[in-house]
Amino acid sequence: MSGALHGVRVLDLSSVVVGPVATGTLAEHGAEVIKVESPEGDLLRSLGGRARTPKMSGKFLNFNRGKRSICLDLKKPAARAALLRLAERADVLVTNIRPDAQARLGVDAAALTAALPRLIHCSIVGFASGGPYEGKPAYDTVIQGVSGVAGCFEASTGEPRYVPLLIADHVCGLIAAQVIGFALYRREKTGRGEAIEVPMFENMAAFVLTEHMGPSTFRPALAPPGDLRVLSPEARPIATADGYIALSANTDAQAHAFFDAIGRPELKTDPDFATVAARTANTARYFALRAEALKARTSAEWLAIFDAADVPAMPYNRISDLLHDPQLRASGLVSEAENATEGAVYRIGAANRMSGGMAPPPGDAPRLGADGAALLAEAGVAPGDIDTLRAEGSLVVPHHPAESA
Amino acid sequence: MSGALHGVRVLDLSSVVVGPVATGTLAEHGAEVIKVESPEGDLLRSLGGRARTPKMSGKFLNFNRGKRSICLDLKKPAARAALLRLAERADVLVTNIRPDAQARLGVDAAALTAALPRLIHCSIVGFASGGPYEGKPAYDTVIQGVSGVAGCFEASTGEPRYVPLLIADHVCGLIAAQVIGFALYRREKTGRGEAIEVPMFENMAAFVLTEHMGPSTFRPALAPPGDLRVLSPEARPIATADGYIALSANTDAQAHAFFDAIGRPELKTDPDFATVAARTANTARYFALRAEALKARTSAEWLAIFDAADVPAMPYNRISDLLHDPQLRASGLVSEAENATEGAVYRIGAANRMSGGMAPPPGDAPRLGADGAALLAEAGVAPGDIDTLRAEGSLVVPHHPAESA
Repeated sequence: MSGALHGVRVLDLSSVVVGPVATGTLAEHGAEVIKVESPEGDLLRSLGGRARTPKMSGKFLNFNRGKRSICLDLKKPAARAALLRLAERADVLVTNIRPDAQARLGVDAAALTAALPRLIHCSIVGFASGGPYEGKPAYDTVIQGVSGVAGCFEASTGEPRYVPLLIADHVCGLIAAQVIGFALYRREKTGRGEAIEVPMFENMAAFVLTEHMGPSTFRPALAPPGDLRVLSPEARPIATADGYIALSANTDAQAHAFFDAIGRPELKTDPDFATVAARTANTARYFALRAEALKARTSAEWLAIFDAADVPAMPYNRISDLLHDPQLRASGLVSEAENATEGAVYRIGAANRMSGGMAPPPGDAPRLGADGAALLAEAGVAPGDIDTLRAEGSLVVPHHPAESA
Repeated sequence: MSGALHGVRVLDLSSVVVGPVATGTLAEHGAEVIKVESPEGDLLRSLGGRARTPKMSGKFLNFNRGKRSICLDLKKPAARAALLRLAERADVLVTNIRPDAQARLGVDAAALTAALPRLIHCSIVGFASGGPYEGKPAYDTVIQGVSGVAGCFEASTGEPRYVPLLIADHVCGLIAAQVIGFALYRREKTGRGEAIEVPMFENMAAFVLTEHMGPSTFRPALAPPGDLRVLSPEARPIATADGYIALSANTDAQAHAFFDAIGRPELKTDPDFATVAARTANTARYFALRAEALKARTSAEWLAIFDAADVPAMPYNRISDLLHDPQLRASGLVSEAENATEGAVYRIGAANRMSGGMAPPPGDAPRLGADGAALLAEAGVAPGDIDTLRAEGSLVVPHHPAESA
């Protein structure tokens, strides 16, 4: 058994989150990923909290499994030549280097796709080319701010806020992997690769607009934009006598079962709450009466009651709770493992099951430059040339290769 | 020019958001999508705010472009037989019907993939099969609560909260389309379809854990989980003299340029703020000094200053602002259009560019059952049999077919 992308070679010229999510997803499905890093290494190596070894943060480990690392000083011509040797063997190139810098390195789509017609070149940018924001730098929070994600919070609670997740980076990385998959499928039909541009702003604006344009889809607008049920300031886990639970009772059947469960059967025939349309029109009151009712019992009591009544409800989990959640342990999403260089860790497994075969669990995230010499040898660079690259500092190798094996 | 998924036929047995996002993505890339609806129609038809025509809400329009609708009463055996005729012609089947109900309809993976070895069957579920939560109902907010998304807010602001977007539905729909693309690629190699399970809980828990497990990746934990920079309660657009802007100055070069721009050059050598590590350790103070500085000028003034200094910063957009954003207009993400049945609308275009060819803009979202008779005829059902299905109520057609043309 092997993954759906077995045999696909990916050259990864990306860092931090958006690109590494894309290439990490491809690796999870069995692609071989070569991560090209500068002598300083991916900035993410030092972000997200304490590590056991410098430049091996937990956050880096979790976004970079299944990749091998080569460290090249691309200021040197010989390093750029070595990079092109790697590109020649690649099926897919993923980069979030700004397009002008791509061109300076000779790895932009115009240069590569002409020479390598089977290459799929995916450039993740902040803003689509050709528009007035083209070339502007993009970071997750900037994209959340300009794309309306932060605006959804102002529409909900009155205060603009970012989601406390790198939602723009993470979602656009998943989308990049998705579009690369479609291009791989097309290449099987046509024999040709292509250039893909994934603009983060446009993708996140589409995300927000599909959900919230609503009555302002129509011209003239039938009402201001915003799905009031989703934007309710009460859209949050509900406090019980001893904690919180997550509850959703949207269809009439669920809402009526909920009213029975909380001892308010008369609401089933109350014109303000009996139907989806009525509850949507009275979202604030509906959410308020739910909040009031749930104070009466513990989370465990309510979960048992709602389970019996087929009302969708689940425990509220904090981040640390996920490591011990029985479902995540049973499905293998969370497991205890030994990292090859970093020791005992928790490991995140594949979420999705494919009956056609799953890739073996990806290898551990690499130390900086751990695989450089091996990768160049695989690309056909002669041993003497690799030594020269190393001696002149074009190829940077770890000080203690044994530790990075 | 045609889309990457030109020629791919998708049978869509899904409703509301998670499944329709997946099939809408496939349609955007040129797949033919047949949306199967019950006589009541997709619940989303009536959600998200006012419509011009009943069951044609703006939210429904935006998630269901490029699909044709057939309305079948699957309680009737003849309707179930007609559904199987459609499945026989499909490359991909997407469903978020619960697995036990899939089996009752005869469209579960076990039944179909044996008979149709080239079919890719994608079942989107709340929780992976085999675990203790298998079969529990799943809705966006329930998944946000159990997967740690709401917990990220508690870690940030002290209060559990849902993202005011259907992030679990929307992200898992994008992931389903991604995994289907990988399966289509594999089918070109092997000639075989497969069964895919996309569990929302596992996908969203992986989303949260990759970002926030951080120092708790290690056993024993080096520190509690959570990326403190992302979880800072100050992670939000920054107020200026007349509004807000979105600003990100993460690398040392950006932060130093920012300190110069706000007239605080001494911070470049302040050990508390000079490096990424120092600013991460002093996130609260760093964000507070940024907030204090930005009160001095207007948004437009700051954006001009930061643009010149190459500090990433962008305007803050409310949802309604997106409809008039110059970049979104230039890139075609937002355009003014005429909907075939609903009149003048704003339309959301494709965010991603593929040089191998883009699909034509998808057709408008269908009225309920608008294409039923035509779809059965294309599947080879004889005209007399279609009439019989219609007469017995197995196939439901609109009252005014001319309006749904």
